[in-house]
Amino acid sequence: MKNVAIFGAGRIGHIHASNLAALPGVKLKYVCDPNSAAASEMAQKHGAQVSDIEAVFADPSIEVVAIASSTDTHSDLISRAAVAGKHIFCEKPVDLSVPRARACAAAVKAAGVACMIGFQRRFDPTFSEARARLDRGEIGNPEMLVITSRDPGAPPAEYIKLSGGIFRDMLIHDFDVFRWILCADGDEAQWLSATGSVLTDPAIAALGDFDSTAVTIRTRKGRLCQINTTRRAAYGYDQRFEVLGSTGMLQCGNHTPSEVKQWDATGVRGDKPENFFLQRYSAAYRLEIAHFFECLQSGAAFRTTIADGVAALELADAATESCKTGQPVDF
Amino acid sequence: MKNVAIFGAGRIGHIHASNLAALPGVKLKYVCDPNSAAASEMAQKHGAQVSDIEAVFADPSIEVVAIASSTDTHSDLISRAAVAGKHIFCEKPVDLSVPRARACAAAVKAAGVACMIGFQRRFDPTFSEARARLDRGEIGNPEMLVITSRDPGAPPAEYIKLSGGIFRDMLIHDFDVFRWILCADGDEAQWLSATGSVLTDPAIAALGDFDSTAVTIRTRKGRLCQINTTRRAAYGYDQRFEVLGSTGMLQCGNHTPSEVKQWDATGVRGDKPENFFLQRYSAAYRLEIAHFFECLQSGAAFRTTIADGVAALELADAATESCKTGQPVDF
Amino acid sequence: MKNVAIFGAGRIGHIHASNLAALPGVKLKYVCDPNSAAASEMAQKHGAQVSDIEAVFADPSIEVVAIASSTDTHSDLISRAAVAGKHIFCEKPVDLSVPRARACAAAVKAAGVACMIGFQRRFDPTFSEARARLDRGEIGNPEMLVITSRDPGAPPAEYIKLSGGIFRDMLIHDFDVFRWILCADGDEAQWLSATGSVLTDPAIAALGDFDSTAVTIRTRKGRLCQINTTRRAAYGYDQRFEVLGSTGMLQCGNHTPSEVKQWDATGVRGDKPENFFLQRYSAAYRLEIAHFFECLQSGAAFRTTIADGVAALELADAATESCKTGQPVDF
Amino acid sequence: MKNVAIFGAGRIGHIHASNLAALPGVKLKYVCDPNSAAASEMAQKHGAQVSDIEAVFADPSIEVVAIASSTDTHSDLISRAAVAGKHIFCEKPVDLSVPRARACAAAVKAAGVACMIGFQRRFDPTFSEARARLDRGEIGNPEMLVITSRDPGAPPAEYIKLSGGIFRDMLIHDFDVFRWILCADGDEAQWLSATGSVLTDPAIAALGDFDSTAVTIRTRKGRLCQINTTRRAAYGYDQRFEVLGSTGMLQCGNHTPSEVKQWDATGVRGDKPENFFLQRYSAAYRLEIAHFFECLQSGAAFRTTIADGVAALELADAATESCKTGQPVDF
Repeated sequence: MKNVAIFGAGRIGHIHASNLAALPGVKLKYVCDPNSAAASEMAQKHGAQVSDIEAVFADPSIEVVAIASSTDTHSDLISRAAVAGKHIFCEKPVDLSVPRARACAAAVKAAGVACMIGFQRRFDPTFSEARARLDRGEIGNPEMLVITSRDPGAPPAEYIKLSGGIFRDMLIHDFDVFRWILCADGDEAQWLSATGSVLTDPAIAALGDFDSTAVTIRTRKGRLCQINTTRRAAYGYDQRFEVLGSTGMLQCGNHTPSEVKQWDATGVRGDKPENFFLQRYSAAYRLEIAHFFECLQSGAAFRTTIADGVAALELADAATESCKTGQPVDF
Repeated sequence: MKNVAIFGAGRIGHIHASNLAALPGVKLKYVCDPNSAAASEMAQKHGAQVSDIEAVFADPSIEVVAIASSTDTHSDLISRAAVAGKHIFCEKPVDLSVPRARACAAAVKAAGVACMIGFQRRFDPTFSEARARLDRGEIGNPEMLVITSRDPGAPPAEYIKLSGGIFRDMLIHDFDVFRWILCADGDEAQWLSATGSVLTDPAIAALGDFDSTAVTIRTRKGRLCQINTTRRAAYGYDQRFEVLGSTGMLQCGNHTPSEVKQWDATGVRGDKPENFFLQRYSAAYRLEIAHFFECLQSGAAFRTTIADGVAALELADAATESCKTGQPVDF
Repeated sequence: MKNVAIFGAGRIGHIHASNLAALPGVKLKYVCDPNSAAASEMAQKHGAQVSDIEAVFADPSIEVVAIASSTDTHSDLISRAAVAGKHIFCEKPVDLSVPRARACAAAVKAAGVACMIGFQRRFDPTFSEARARLDRGEIGNPEMLVITSRDPGAPPAEYIKLSGGIFRDMLIHDFDVFRWILCADGDEAQWLSATGSVLTDPAIAALGDFDSTAVTIRTRKGRLCQINTTRRAAYGYDQRFEVLGSTGMLQCGNHTPSEVKQWDATGVRGDKPENFFLQRYSAAYRLEIAHFFECLQSGAAFRTTIADGVAALELADAATESCKTGQPVDF
Repeated sequence: MKNVAIFGAGRIGHIHASNLAALPGVKLKYVCDPNSAAASEMAQKHGAQVSDIEAVFADPSIEVVAIASSTDTHSDLISRAAVAGKHIFCEKPVDLSVPRARACAAAVKAAGVACMIGFQRRFDPTFSEARARLDRGEIGNPEMLVITSRDPGAPPAEYIKLSGGIFRDMLIHDFDVFRWILCADGDEAQWLSATGSVLTDPAIAALGDFDSTAVTIRTRKGRLCQINTTRRAAYGYDQRFEVLGSTGMLQCGNHTPSEVKQWDATGVRGDKPENFFLQRYSAAYRLEIAHFFECLQSGAAFRTTIADGVAALELADAATESCKTGQPVDF
């Protein structure tokens, strides 16, 4: 039985807590959150105890910590967990600063603990099926990737202010998908160009951020990736990608709440995509945490490592710079 | 906390046990199965105890029994549970004999216990969305229903021998869907015609059964329903229906494991439907048992009652007769 | 150059006239119609002359007649054309009476002229692709056929009065599709059951007709066919069929005016099917008439013969009787 | 009756000749082609005469010329036709040189003749339906455009050598679509970045060209467009675009030869897209030439002008430069 402490009793914390508590051989022992009411509620729901950071790190019965607290606490908690010898599951991102993220990676390595970063898209049933088919060679050598990644609405300005900007906050997932799909053979980004606009809310411009972006990446092997993003797709949460290979193409579509088609005088209408990330990626979050504990058990490599977290952040930094200067970035 | 005993530790028993054990306020206390190894394994998995039928009915701490044992035990267990004052969730069918099923219904009524029959299709996210849209009048008055219900392969002759025939074993679900979709306003079947063939395996003919059937029902209000069924669809488990209304049509499609489309020299290829009923209806089974306990708690009416179980069986009997005689049945 | 006379300058006459006039080696020479204004307009459009029936049959320069006049004139024109030694293209049906249709077939045979009946669905690009795949064995041996055939709205009572009833007027196409798809190896209908209702317009009931029907046919080899039809599908003209084979299934969908999908707050919406038969079958009508002249030229067999016209009418008669008596018909 | 001379009796010449010859009020009088056998064959097919350039321009009975000859002859023929007072339909591109294209536009303007450039995609039923919905405001203000434009295979090196490069040869259509969809309100490209690779055939690299490209354009109003292109999509000719608006999205899919879906053990498979541009755009070519003559008749403005031809070429030039230097172009 592995005892686990979780940091963070917010929305994403609840997802991870429920998923890990349902796993055989895993026991949620402690919940930590500055909001003590939230911590109590989660602890009660799962038969755990409220605790605090110091106590968790000091308790030798705790093997694993799950970090689902606010982004600005991630690097500190990772580093301290590493020092304390705990294995780590941490929600993305590692940090909003590349140097701090690299320091975390170094701390993890030095301590010899296991650390997985939560890029849940790699566990989505549709996306991971595409990856499996690439591995089986079903479309030959991958050549181009088109990612459509759109949120249903912009978050409040308060959130955006602390988000690190759209590239670090939202596209970091897409940069990870790029690396996962196009760079599995050791290929890497060589050239990146980003541009953006504010089309939905002037408050976003006032913060120096963008709500609509277009990124292109060319790899060393000449593969091409285009990413289009918006904070506000009126029809909902749109999460798709298409990868062209030398012998075919894989197209990953959205998931829908039902398979009902309504035929009437206006046409033939299917469901909108699943509402937002908690719905679309509910299976992914479940599979992700199961993978984490299976790898801990078996010693197999994680599908997403802290190095992946650093690499995605480096691309986000490059895109942020390119979008501001209007010039491409060479790696 | 509601204490529950389950009868049956086979495939479908495991589904119900896992789903009910995960519900808040529900405790799986006892597992009963003639196969004691299976009973032990299930009991251990859920922290329950192995028990036997008499002990369960005698234990006043047990409020609810879930019946997932073999079909030929259902009516006896329902009747005894009713006498013992236990609330009942029973997998379909109530029984393979209409008189015995009616006797069960009478016993349940006399005892005043709650009894729900597991027609899980009514809880499928796609099918129940269609029902909800009918309720909201989105396609007007329902007029025609076309049900496609195909298994991926015939079961062994041993199974078929005890199954009651294809109409009682397989189409009973479709007869329930017919009543649920077309008869919600009190309408009823008035005329039924069935025909069938053996196209896949002569052993099925030797047992006096069919593997391919076509049923038509006309209701008192003149609504029409056509059901086509086969035991062997080479492409998998096909579960669809279309309901035509006065102002539109609702088309319920299959569910698929992923939303990947593969484009290559052979065409554009999506997934086959979910493999079989355990996959296709996994959400339905979960929602069904949750509905059962919610209704027990709130006192609301079940979506599927023992009367529904009897009515579907009556239609199955009529279809069996019609298919054998070649003549329609009038109700 | 083949000189052709056309009988009938109405809606369907215009389709055939335009299509045959565009063929190389074919010259539309005469147009005949009791409505002289309509005849003149069509003649002018195609550089043809207005003529009358006697003159056409007497003119030795005419090799071919195309019959697109009202149904009640078909058998007379076929018989007279046969006697006059003209090859015949005739719109379906041969006649509304089976004996008269058989007499026509005999007259055609006796005269040794070529005669093709216009069941245009056999030339639809989607339906004929399905037939081609059956021929190539792509789904093995055909076992079940489900036909959905729905008009967008009922015609006026005046039309229905003269139509011969829904089975002879509308389902005759579906009976031909049944024979084309399931009986290509010489199989034949053995048992047929039909039922129907009036759900859209009481005037149809007053005429002794139906607007909603459900037909089931079982063949000698045990194949099953279900046909569902309505005069009024609120979402438009719905023309689909699915054929299940021993190793797969072919599903023939509707055609749409465009491939635009609109994603908005209400869902993801595609086009309704093509508006009505003139739109859906525009390619079919074009390919049908080209096939007719190609076969005349090459001596190859027509895809649809007068025998097919008689056979479909026999099924329509059987369905009419079954629907009125409530009893199946055995062949 | 408008008399027309056509220049060019090759593949695209045949398309235009057949389409214009079928129009009421239009007479194909002359065919000119350096390949006299090809000219004769086309002339014979349409009852026209073989002629030469000088004779055509000198013949006062000729009102209209259709230019479907090789690209390097377009600008000369346009200029001479303008001087001769003939109205002009010219296949894209105007020329491979922007200055020469501008000179053509000036010559046309000076002569006061009508001149339409054949960007047939604007007449595709799917693409023009999307444009119509934008005009009706069905998705609000357009914000982002993603164009997928892929050929089924690279042409021979001989062709590529004379093609002007992939941006002028292939993407010129996509640049026109960009302007048509995103710039209808007078908006214009402000910033363009292109990159490319050679992934299919080293011979293309040897010619200094690319076979895989990714272009991004930002407009003055901040709209974003991404275009992905390849010379070789193993699954065929892929022609799609998606336009995101403030209240929805329009997704334009490929056209397919049939609507058959084959369900078997490998999945559910639909047709590949129409084979290549002659098939996909057959309706577009027909509608385009009809539009040209309708506008000539009515005096209405053409949907595509010589100015559009120049503007698309300017974007192709900018993309060629950007792709070679790795730097964006500002307008």
